[in-house]
Amino acid sequence: MGIKKNQFVIVGLGRFGSSVGRELIELGHEVLGIDKDEEAVQDMSSELTFAVSADCTDEEALRSLGVRNFDCGIVAIGDDIQASILTTILLKDLGVKKVVAKAISELHGRVLEKIGVDRVVYPERDMGIRVAHQLVSPNLLDYIELSKEYTIAELAVPQCLNGKSLHDLNPRARFGCSIVAINKPGGIIIAPTATDVLSERDVMVVIGTNDQIEDFEAAVIR
Amino acid sequence: MGIKKNQFVIVGLGRFGSSVGRELIELGHEVLGIDKDEEAVQDMSSELTFAVSADCTDEEALRSLGVRNFDCGIVAIGDDIQASILTTILLKDLGVKKVVAKAISELHGRVLEKIGVDRVVYPERDMGIRVAHQLVSPNLLDYIELSKEYTIAELAVPQCLNGKSLHDLNPRARFGCSIVAINKPGGIIIAPTATDVLSERDVMVVIGTNDQIEDFEAAVIR
Amino acid sequence: MGIKKNQFVIVGLGRFGSSVGRELIELGHEVLGIDKDEEAVQDMSSELTFAVSADCTDEEALRSLGVRNFDCGIVAIGDDIQASILTTILLKDLGVKKVVAKAISELHGRVLEKIGVDRVVYPERDMGIRVAHQLVSPNLLDYIELSKEYTIAELAVPQCLNGKSLHDLNPRARFGCSIVAINKPGGIIIAPTATDVLSERDVMVVIGTNDQIEDFEAAVIR
Amino acid sequence: MGIKKNQFVIVGLGRFGSSVGRELIELGHEVLGIDKDEEAVQDMSSELTFAVSADCTDEEALRSLGVRNFDCGIVAIGDDIQASILTTILLKDLGVKKVVAKAISELHGRVLEKIGVDRVVYPERDMGIRVAHQLVSPNLLDYIELSKEYTIAELAVPQCLNGKSLHDLNPRARFGCSIVAINKPGGIIIAPTATDVLSERDVMVVIGTNDQIEDFEAAVIR
Amino acid sequence: MGIKKNQFVIVGLGRFGSSVGRELIELGHEVLGIDKDEEAVQDMSSELTFAVSADCTDEEALRSLGVRNFDCGIVAIGDDIQASILTTILLKDLGVKKVVAKAISELHGRVLEKIGVDRVVYPERDMGIRVAHQLVSPNLLDYIELSKEYTIAELAVPQCLNGKSLHDLNPRARFGCSIVAINKPGGIIIAPTATDVLSERDVMVVIGTNDQIEDFEAAVIR
Amino acid sequence: MGIKKNQFVIVGLGRFGSSVGRELIELGHEVLGIDKDEEAVQDMSSELTFAVSADCTDEEALRSLGVRNFDCGIVAIGDDIQASILTTILLKDLGVKKVVAKAISELHGRVLEKIGVDRVVYPERDMGIRVAHQLVSPNLLDYIELSKEYTIAELAVPQCLNGKSLHDLNPRARFGCSIVAINKPGGIIIAPTATDVLSERDVMVVIGTNDQIEDFEAAVIR
Amino acid sequence: MGIKKNQFVIVGLGRFGSSVGRELIELGHEVLGIDKDEEAVQDMSSELTFAVSADCTDEEALRSLGVRNFDCGIVAIGDDIQASILTTILLKDLGVKKVVAKAISELHGRVLEKIGVDRVVYPERDMGIRVAHQLVSPNLLDYIELSKEYTIAELAVPQCLNGKSLHDLNPRARFGCSIVAINKPGGIIIAPTATDVLSERDVMVVIGTNDQIEDFEAAVIR
Amino acid sequence: MGIKKNQFVIVGLGRFGSSVGRELIELGHEVLGIDKDEEAVQDMSSELTFAVSADCTDEEALRSLGVRNFDCGIVAIGDDIQASILTTILLKDLGVKKVVAKAISELHGRVLEKIGVDRVVYPERDMGIRVAHQLVSPNLLDYIELSKEYTIAELAVPQCLNGKSLHDLNPRARFGCSIVAINKPGGIIIAPTATDVLSERDVMVVIGTNDQIEDFEAAVIR
Repeated sequence: MGIKKNQFVIVGLGRFGSSVGRELIELGHEVLGIDKDEEAVQDMSSELTFAVSADCTDEEALRSLGVRNFDCGIVAIGDDIQASILTTILLKDLGVKKVVAKAISELHGRVLEKIGVDRVVYPERDMGIRVAHQLVSPNLLDYIELSKEYTIAELAVPQCLNGKSLHDLNPRARFGCSIVAINKPGGIIIAPTATDVLSERDVMVVIGTNDQIEDFEAAVIR
Repeated sequence: MGIKKNQFVIVGLGRFGSSVGRELIELGHEVLGIDKDEEAVQDMSSELTFAVSADCTDEEALRSLGVRNFDCGIVAIGDDIQASILTTILLKDLGVKKVVAKAISELHGRVLEKIGVDRVVYPERDMGIRVAHQLVSPNLLDYIELSKEYTIAELAVPQCLNGKSLHDLNPRARFGCSIVAINKPGGIIIAPTATDVLSERDVMVVIGTNDQIEDFEAAVIR
Repeated sequence: MGIKKNQFVIVGLGRFGSSVGRELIELGHEVLGIDKDEEAVQDMSSELTFAVSADCTDEEALRSLGVRNFDCGIVAIGDDIQASILTTILLKDLGVKKVVAKAISELHGRVLEKIGVDRVVYPERDMGIRVAHQLVSPNLLDYIELSKEYTIAELAVPQCLNGKSLHDLNPRARFGCSIVAINKPGGIIIAPTATDVLSERDVMVVIGTNDQIEDFEAAVIR
Repeated sequence: MGIKKNQFVIVGLGRFGSSVGRELIELGHEVLGIDKDEEAVQDMSSELTFAVSADCTDEEALRSLGVRNFDCGIVAIGDDIQASILTTILLKDLGVKKVVAKAISELHGRVLEKIGVDRVVYPERDMGIRVAHQLVSPNLLDYIELSKEYTIAELAVPQCLNGKSLHDLNPRARFGCSIVAINKPGGIIIAPTATDVLSERDVMVVIGTNDQIEDFEAAVIR
Repeated sequence: MGIKKNQFVIVGLGRFGSSVGRELIELGHEVLGIDKDEEAVQDMSSELTFAVSADCTDEEALRSLGVRNFDCGIVAIGDDIQASILTTILLKDLGVKKVVAKAISELHGRVLEKIGVDRVVYPERDMGIRVAHQLVSPNLLDYIELSKEYTIAELAVPQCLNGKSLHDLNPRARFGCSIVAINKPGGIIIAPTATDVLSERDVMVVIGTNDQIEDFEAAVIR
Repeated sequence: MGIKKNQFVIVGLGRFGSSVGRELIELGHEVLGIDKDEEAVQDMSSELTFAVSADCTDEEALRSLGVRNFDCGIVAIGDDIQASILTTILLKDLGVKKVVAKAISELHGRVLEKIGVDRVVYPERDMGIRVAHQLVSPNLLDYIELSKEYTIAELAVPQCLNGKSLHDLNPRARFGCSIVAINKPGGIIIAPTATDVLSERDVMVVIGTNDQIEDFEAAVIR
Repeated sequence: MGIKKNQFVIVGLGRFGSSVGRELIELGHEVLGIDKDEEAVQDMSSELTFAVSADCTDEEALRSLGVRNFDCGIVAIGDDIQASILTTILLKDLGVKKVVAKAISELHGRVLEKIGVDRVVYPERDMGIRVAHQLVSPNLLDYIELSKEYTIAELAVPQCLNGKSLHDLNPRARFGCSIVAINKPGGIIIAPTATDVLSERDVMVVIGTNDQIEDFEAAVIR
Repeated sequence: MGIKKNQFVIVGLGRFGSSVGRELIELGHEVLGIDKDEEAVQDMSSELTFAVSADCTDEEALRSLGVRNFDCGIVAIGDDIQASILTTILLKDLGVKKVVAKAISELHGRVLEKIGVDRVVYPERDMGIRVAHQLVSPNLLDYIELSKEYTIAELAVPQCLNGKSLHDLNPRARFGCSIVAINKPGGIIIAPTATDVLSERDVMVVIGTNDQIEDFEAAVIR
């Protein structure tokens, strides 16, 4: 969604790091990928702006790659906590403006915060939570937690709601939650009205408290 | 969001598997965790309904744990593709109704689909994509891709919009996208009107095409 | 026994794979051998049409070797179940018409069948059964199981039968089984008559039920 | 096919050794299995008469197991040539009447013969040859090589021969080979006559020279 | 030199850690030693107040040992930078008042300082510097660097100065440095006068700039 | 402090060896560094006069490097006791005049002395002792043990002594120890008089028995 | 050949050490065997007076075994030069009167001598020399090198000398060497006379210079 | 002691093999050394006629080295029993006339004999026996066992026999053994007479039964 072309350096080209890299390229930015494993570098060399094999805990190596001029550094090192910490401190000390680092445990995350990282991400933990929600509520396609209480849920319209209008469902009155959009194969309806009708292949976007949405799902959808 | 208490069996208690397990417990369900590593089992034993150390590629072991009676199996085995595949086929053959499996590569995912898994997840890849979007657009807190074209974005309200009304912003007319909710410290406003005013600590929920939201962000927010 | 020259690709040049390859060459066909171990490749390079070292779980590598054009693929990978499965699915997806794969366990075999292999072979298991039969019945040189009940047995003629005619033996009347051929140093007699005489170095081909042949052996031969 | 109950000792309970053992038990004999790996022993303990974990190159260990009293020893040790050789010489020296050993290379086989083994088997090599023949000739279900020249082949009757009589086929006159049996779902016909008719699900047993059978297959079956 | 009995916890009982521990005990303090290696713990158990085997990166383990109540923690972990960092942050977070940590590289030291360690020591580096000085100047027994410029040197009196008085030497006038003490076998002379006489087995304590002491050594001693 | 340029050979370029080397270079001498690890050699090659990768237990290798002509050899090999001993004996036998070796245990040290080393150093043990003293007495910056009884201590002047004269303190009369120098930011005062006044950032150099200094610290400083 | 019963301690129960131990027991002495490997200890426990598993570089362990009271220590440690050296110095320091040690290289031997070992043996080197001599001169059964020049050779009498008398051979006059004994099946003849006659199965003991014996062999025996 | 120059091939250039090789070269013969370890080959390349790195279990490799033309092969492979056996059978099959092999256990030796080796040597065992004898009888320098009963012993003349004549000693009459030679610094006396006098630095060569020599030593020498 960016217009200005930014420059990112990603240290660690494992599954997480290479996915971040690919998507940044996809979004139109420039990405330098670094990994000590030459094979990982070779695999990504055609997908990133530049990929290079280097020891990311070697200050000279990072300096000579001009890392300091990058807008943002992503430390996506897998299981080697030591390398993750040393690389992070080097990126900060070299003057990279924003550094995001992946942590594999809460303790790891604490150290990263102490040494000044701008944001810590826990990919496996976060995806685990997301998958758990989807398992529990099979029509839930995706969701955003707006707060502890409020959620936006993207819900598949089940067969039993085929042909029902929003008036029939009346979620606001019955459960307190609102349908703010309906994604239909032919196009999206934003702020749908009571006369809009659901079809089996539609997707509803619902906003409400967790309890409201849960009740709505339990009563109407399943 | 579930009301009925479901039973899940998770094979593989690494970072992803244990995160799924913790969240399912949090959501009120029962979880049996299995891992061949006794230490991993011990670490999770107080958090799950039941955790046990077993070789998950041994049909007899799975059978004796009564795995067939579970509603859903999650194969969250880390890097051992072989164990992931063999466990998945055993769960399916034992009659587990729904089996979700983690894949670490596209080829791994293809095999899982061929042997009948109900859903394949790629945690590191998906989190990588999500993190890339957030890096590129710093006010983007979270988002849902409704389709290739449409997105719901949860955007932090920046300082420069403090005190502006929706009328001032007029995103529908200027960019084509709609603000469907504003999350304020005092409570959420669903389907806000033109007179609603933004404050710096609010969060907007915007629906639109990727381009519309991008233009909106570029012009108004940054 | 083939007349048309076929093209085979064998992945895995261990003892089983290289034996298949050598025999196919012997039978007049063309064989491409692939193994990730360079030494194994070098050992077979003079015996096969072409032998190459490559990672057989790398789709690009297989594609660039033109594997899709081969009539038949044999996945003869030793103990690495993961590589066996991934290679098999790649060969199928690349469009190889017939894929035969070696399995080292029943579970491995089940996965191979699920992902669409045309035939699963269990070399060690099958040879174990064959050797067991020969151990138990020392005159048994080889045999074909026609059905659960019927067997063709190739039996060495022991010293005690030297000079005996088929009339003397009369297996049909006494045991129910038939001698359908006698292989003599001077030439084979097909459908021998009652007046044909056995010599010590002859070999009989007997057809009958397992019990009939067992009785025949127990009474006459030993 | 044995009537007398024999006693076998199998050293090495890998895939080949355990398959020999299972089949010997199936055929009604007694089997003592020995392996240094306790897990392999445990896996087979319920299938063999007796299974024990011991170092098979330790003369005392073999002696104390009463190995000398066994009718036959099978040295089925996998890849450890040294253990295979040392075990074989111990079994011979302890007085086991007949010792059969698995070899993994021609050189290994030569040593085994020099130290007095009664028979050397090459499971992977032999199965490789067998599989190669079946690949080349798709209707070939199994075969016995009677001599360098003559073979008994078990051939599936293809669709195109449905309803044909032996008179129609006339293999003796046209190709020189004979059909000595037809295995039909309803029962086996030994020494079939010219009026016997083939059906698609039948199996023919053909005796002839390799060339004759090859010609027969090429002309009639495919 | 302490009067109050302090409580120290030492994590890592290698050569450095155990030497710190032994000396603290010698100086009359209480020391809890922790190491994950049971053998190292056993070796030190009779020399420290208490020695225990535990994973020092496990917060619960440290907490249950009551580590928070100790006056000072010494992180003497050898080559495992990760364990050193994680242990240090745990000790700080548990509330240990003063934490001293050993670093094996300048980068390691930087991280330790960022996460709030009170003092970083580099034993091998510092001893290397000390040994270098002693190698270069063979009469130098020990020294203290008071500042970049000033040093106190403990110098052995060489044979050539036997019987010389301080008046003869006159270091103040000739070189600018002062002899502030003479350690003689019979007792120490503090602030010696011009009439005090040196003997071969005496030791002089000299204060001056590095250049003054160097000149003094070069001219008088060697 | 040397004037004549000496030549040192250092075997083992780990943390201790490289620190000795750097300091010797700093002091104006020539240093040849040897290590079997090429990476260690490369890291030091720009800091030493010459650095080379060689097997230091190979007599020919040492001879060809001209090691015999060096003034002093330092065997700074880390944990490999065998290499340390063999190298030491080779240096002595090649005629290096003075050989200093690092020992990692008392037994190791005994062997080194038996084979004729000129001095044994125990870096980790000695630094451990030094750190222990500094931990116990927080104002102690450094110290020299003149004898079992007498010590020179370099003590930071604490806040509570700010503005006090030596007359006020009167350490000689009250505790028996003497202040022989005061290091002030503006310059060092050697043999200070009773009217000299202490400031908070000064450092005192005190000579006395251990007990005297301990009492002095306990009573006055803390 | 001893009359007094001596006590030996052997450290290292490999092939050399256990052979020394067995022979000492055979010769009527008492032997304590020590090895860190428990299996090696168990194998020898029934053959030596006492065998124990201990770390032979641990002074306390050796002391508690009462090693100091032994007449002689044999350090027969295989390839671990460090353990060999440390054990040797411990045995010497504990007061073992005579210590014999096995060396695996000349440099190893030099260290052993420096630390005071009473005798160094090189089993493989010495046996290599002995075997070389026997290979070169096939009738040579054994020999003693009396000096650089003189040898006693034990030579098999070849067929061609059957019935020859010493007068016929006359080695003294023709070659300069003397036959000092003839070992015949019926008994040994010491200082044989000219009339003594050789038979094919006799063995001659010859004394002379290397050249004399070589000439004698070349001319008479072969 | 050979005159004709023979050609030896030694497989395995460890301590034993390289010692055999060096001595054969010393004795004037030609030696080809083979080892799979390139470093071992390089170390011996200047000492043997020719040294080459090859896999000695690869028939082609041995054939291409022309091994068949050598007079004698020595299989001096250390601990790898399998390589020792395979190499031995290859040397025999290639037609090497005489093959000597080192065995490390009795069982290993038995296999070597079964596959036709000409002589088995046990260097460590034999040297162990030899060293045991010398330990027990300190004046024993070397010895030859002529038979189970008779020995030739080379005994150092101790101080107490200085100036004694053979008449004084009279070993024949008193103990039954004979002194057949006295090796004096000035030259050897063969068949000494009663008037020959012993000096402290002489060496006696004694022939007799084990008991006679033992009695002689016990009574006279010690």
